[in-house]
Amino acid sequence: MAEPDGRACVRARVLIRPKAGILDPQGVAVEQALPALGFTGVSDVRIGRLIELELDDPAQLEAMCERLLANPLIEDYEIVGR
Amino acid sequence: MAEPDGRACVRARVLIRPKAGILDPQGVAVEQALPALGFTGVSDVRIGRLIELELDDPAQLEAMCERLLANPLIEDYEIVGR
Repeated sequence: MAEPDGRACVRARVLIRPKAGILDPQGVAVEQALPALGFTGVSDVRIGRLIELELDDPAQLEAMCERLLANPLIEDYEIVGR
Repeated sequence: MAEPDGRACVRARVLIRPKAGILDPQGVAVEQALPALGFTGVSDVRIGRLIELELDDPAQLEAMCERLLANPLIEDYEIVGR
């Protein structure tokens, strides 16, 4: 998609996960709830965030992840195209 | 990865997004915060969840999404391999 001033607008996707070894309480809660619903054989549930956005300059995305989108102390992020 | 009883254990990923037209307050907050950090030209920010898990029977995953992982009233889910 081109903008009126001619810059390209890119749709990007960022996957954010709790770092390995960091406790993931949401994941634990889901894992414990599944057997009560009849779902067995599920393990290692990890819950992160999915961020999708449009931006003019994809080169900014890594800095955006470091400064706002992810918490680099406890989360890893992965930038994927779309 | 095979389990002791011989069943295969599959790693799966589920992407969950707010449905189109549903207000996404997290996304709005991020979109409004970015310019204050010097990031411009960003629009249509949508924030969802990323769920990764291991399970014996991938055929159960859709039912798990409908009943626990996603809220089908306001969220779409996409099951992807890994």
